[in-house]
Amino acid sequence: MVKNWKSKLHEIIYEADTRAGKLFDVVLLVLILASVALVMLESVADFAGKYGTFLNISEWVITILFTFEYFARIICIRKPAQYIFSFYGIIDFLSTIPKYLSLFFVGSHSLVVLRALRLMRVFRILKLARFVGESNNLMRALKASRIKIGIFIMFVLILCTILGSIMYLVEGGIENSKFTSIPQSIYWAIVTLTTVGYGDMFPTTVIGQSIASIIMILGYGIIAVPTGIVTAQFATMEKDQLHLNTQSCPNCAAEGHRDGAEFCFDCGAVLNPEETN
Amino acid sequence: MVKNWKSKLHEIIYEADTRAGKLFDVVLLVLILASVALVMLESVADFAGKYGTFLNISEWVITILFTFEYFARIICIRKPAQYIFSFYGIIDFLSTIPKYLSLFFVGSHSLVVLRALRLMRVFRILKLARFVGESNNLMRALKASRIKIGIFIMFVLILCTILGSIMYLVEGGIENSKFTSIPQSIYWAIVTLTTVGYGDMFPTTVIGQSIASIIMILGYGIIAVPTGIVTAQFATMEKDQLHLNTQSCPNCAAEGHRDGAEFCFDCGAVLNPEETN
Amino acid sequence: MVKNWKSKLHEIIYEADTRAGKLFDVVLLVLILASVALVMLESVADFAGKYGTFLNISEWVITILFTFEYFARIICIRKPAQYIFSFYGIIDFLSTIPKYLSLFFVGSHSLVVLRALRLMRVFRILKLARFVGESNNLMRALKASRIKIGIFIMFVLILCTILGSIMYLVEGGIENSKFTSIPQSIYWAIVTLTTVGYGDMFPTTVIGQSIASIIMILGYGIIAVPTGIVTAQFATMEKDQLHLNTQSCPNCAAEGHRDGAEFCFDCGAVLNPEETN
Amino acid sequence: MVKNWKSKLHEIIYEADTRAGKLFDVVLLVLILASVALVMLESVADFAGKYGTFLNISEWVITILFTFEYFARIICIRKPAQYIFSFYGIIDFLSTIPKYLSLFFVGSHSLVVLRALRLMRVFRILKLARFVGESNNLMRALKASRIKIGIFIMFVLILCTILGSIMYLVEGGIENSKFTSIPQSIYWAIVTLTTVGYGDMFPTTVIGQSIASIIMILGYGIIAVPTGIVTAQFATMEKDQLHLNTQSCPNCAAEGHRDGAEFCFDCGAVLNPEETN
Repeated sequence: MVKNWKSKLHEIIYEADTRAGKLFDVVLLVLILASVALVMLESVADFAGKYGTFLNISEWVITILFTFEYFARIICIRKPAQYIFSFYGIIDFLSTIPKYLSLFFVGSHSLVVLRALRLMRVFRILKLARFVGESNNLMRALKASRIKIGIFIMFVLILCTILGSIMYLVEGGIENSKFTSIPQSIYWAIVTLTTVGYGDMFPTTVIGQSIASIIMILGYGIIAVPTGIVTAQFATMEKDQLHLNTQSCPNCAAEGHRDGAEFCFDCGAVLNPEETN
Repeated sequence: MVKNWKSKLHEIIYEADTRAGKLFDVVLLVLILASVALVMLESVADFAGKYGTFLNISEWVITILFTFEYFARIICIRKPAQYIFSFYGIIDFLSTIPKYLSLFFVGSHSLVVLRALRLMRVFRILKLARFVGESNNLMRALKASRIKIGIFIMFVLILCTILGSIMYLVEGGIENSKFTSIPQSIYWAIVTLTTVGYGDMFPTTVIGQSIASIIMILGYGIIAVPTGIVTAQFATMEKDQLHLNTQSCPNCAAEGHRDGAEFCFDCGAVLNPEETN
Repeated sequence: MVKNWKSKLHEIIYEADTRAGKLFDVVLLVLILASVALVMLESVADFAGKYGTFLNISEWVITILFTFEYFARIICIRKPAQYIFSFYGIIDFLSTIPKYLSLFFVGSHSLVVLRALRLMRVFRILKLARFVGESNNLMRALKASRIKIGIFIMFVLILCTILGSIMYLVEGGIENSKFTSIPQSIYWAIVTLTTVGYGDMFPTTVIGQSIASIIMILGYGIIAVPTGIVTAQFATMEKDQLHLNTQSCPNCAAEGHRDGAEFCFDCGAVLNPEETN
Repeated sequence: MVKNWKSKLHEIIYEADTRAGKLFDVVLLVLILASVALVMLESVADFAGKYGTFLNISEWVITILFTFEYFARIICIRKPAQYIFSFYGIIDFLSTIPKYLSLFFVGSHSLVVLRALRLMRVFRILKLARFVGESNNLMRALKASRIKIGIFIMFVLILCTILGSIMYLVEGGIENSKFTSIPQSIYWAIVTLTTVGYGDMFPTTVIGQSIASIIMILGYGIIAVPTGIVTAQFATMEKDQLHLNTQSCPNCAAEGHRDGAEFCFDCGAVLNPEETN
């Protein structure tokens, strides 16, 4: 029965409750890591010179495997558009297509680098282990404090714009100054406030150094704010934690179903029964 | 009735409960962002060369709009001095006047940079959204710990002065040393303690590097103090949070009225009735 | 009565409960700040050239005032040794003597820099304000977690020694390497682990950069430990706070007496009665 | 009785409850510190030139003492393999053998640097003091949050890979760019995200600097996550703390026995009775 065959493929690819599903995830993980390693090695001039042919062939093999996977994902889901235009669907597409494009357009090969984006799938594959509860907790704490964090980031950006502009006024006119424009000065303000401090730009006047000192101490103190937000969230969250499983709806691909759920919380379709292993 | 017309303008400009008030805030926000973008682009030499005339005209348009806004704010409030000498009143004035001054004084044009200060208005405009509760909470936590943070900053400054002075003793006499004076050495101590570390100055003697190591480990550990202060505050504050609305007193411009308040907590004047939308 | 006169002087100098005592502290604070500012300005070559005489005279005036204060402190206390060999007594001595020594020894003038140490007195003078409770709380939280922090610092030092030694093995042999010795490499490890990152030394080999990456991520994560220690301490401490006053024992100079205490907790001597103002 | 003699040696070497045991630990600590200091001094070219012979002899003395200790540890334990292949056993071996190897192989002397690893024994020796409870608590808090921290580190690494790859696309083609390969760019991303910021590589294009700004603000905010995890753990852990002693099982060398335990929790062997001092 066709439906049965598709539903089985769906279970293997989209879920991790069965043995075959777990194996598929592990193989996929290894392939992704290999593909990223290949792209890295190719970018190292010495290596690309010596092993160019080997790298090229390996990349084609992985590209073709990824292509199979991409079509398998489309075939076995009931509403393919739901996958194609999902976050991971777009990433899968972007990481597979550049190699084919490189056949027709010369410059496009460097886009293979985008394959690194597939590393994000690691977070979905992780679900197969006991990390589920822990990482869900992490995510929920961050989500709960996203408004406060958003306000904080906006505050940091506005602060850097103002401080950068003032710095441009102070240091901009000096001979050989690196503060050549306001955007450049804002970049410097961000480098300083976040305590990165490359040293490609630094103030040379007394007033400039005084303002820089204020920015540094500000940055040193302000870091307390996101930490405070997240920590307070963690502390209140530690008590209760939800248990979600690795099921994925065969109809709409929604995830995060509670243990024992029989219907998709999003579209109401029947979920595959969980295996008890 | 004149009073009625003014009170309506007040509601639009100073508050964000009505549709017109929200629209005004959004338009103002867009104008501020545009004005900052213009000033930034003008500071980039390439861009200013090509599009000088366009930039100049745009700036004049925005300056005139800001001038209208400034006078509207003065007219529609009962006690204009309260606005003119308020924090935002002074910033509004400082960000509008430099363009006019540039007609008479050649060098004063660069003060247009001060327009970046208007970005701070974003925090007031933010009030129109649900950010109110969240950002109030943030502010209250920081306010509650301001004495502790003040002591901490003073402690950091004194520490940097002492460590900078000692470093000047140790590294100051070395040939080609960058530690040319005590203020310079204090600047270095701040750069190091806050873990910014530009690399424009660094110790070269064994004793100097040993002292630098101590400063770094100190700075690495001391950062725990402001974080601890703010976090403890957040944790105790998480429980209860006040709900304030976006009303502003038509008489004295005081803000932060509780939901449903009918009189200003500061001067006792009658507040505009809240719209229920 | 001599005893009475001495006890009055003691109250002015060592305590801050009376009006005269507060005035003394404020004057002392101003003098200390002035003396530090003078030493700073003198170290700036430009300034010292122009205003050398003025700076020299001002320094002598302040040195003589500090000398008077030093002897007054010795005279009015019953057991002078207790002050002379106390922490602040030694600092007071060290910050007064270099100016006199400069009359006899040529090079000793630069020790005037040690005057910056007197800035620490600010923390004692602070006690005159409402900062008492807050800063006591701060201190108690740090004291309570000093063993944990000590273990942490030792752990960081050992980690840096091991990582620095390994880095010396890896990068030490490279041509033009800055990793010339193990102490130098340990210094680099501290600079990296604390996320200061001057850029005067950095790895150039692939293995070196990999180890550096591990150190950085370690340092980025390890900073959570002191923060966690101090924060947890603050959170548990927030609840109860002791109220101590600014009294100082006229016999042994012990401080930190509880409100209303009539006898010194350390030597049992009678304390000056608190004024009610 | 032979068994008695061995059990006594075991108590001295592996435990710290008796006076002899404590003395042994202190002597060992001093020897380890001396050996590390010797290796450090030898790496400083100036010093090694002048005192080469002295350093060489001292190192041989310490090496021989360490050799005795190594064999004593093997002899007095009932199952020597348990020690030889334990973490500390391997470190002890690695830090003793290079000096002997240097007699036969010329280049192997530099491996003496590995002796720094023995510094880790400090943490075991520490147990003799009251640090036990405190450091156990520290360790348990870190252990309890190790999954969350592991996920976080993996997240940071994946993020740096993706950001580094994108940066290579953006800055890689520029003339004289330091972003010569993807691994190099990933290294830069780690340097930036952890706010170390050496300044050996930095972006020069506008897009590159914009991406760098995003990475910095990300790094500045993300640091809140490990801090939040550890702090929340500390806070919940503060309440209860186990009391473990410094006993070590004479049979299998397991540690961390509760006060008053009479049998090893791991192999069931009888523990040496605790001395009451």
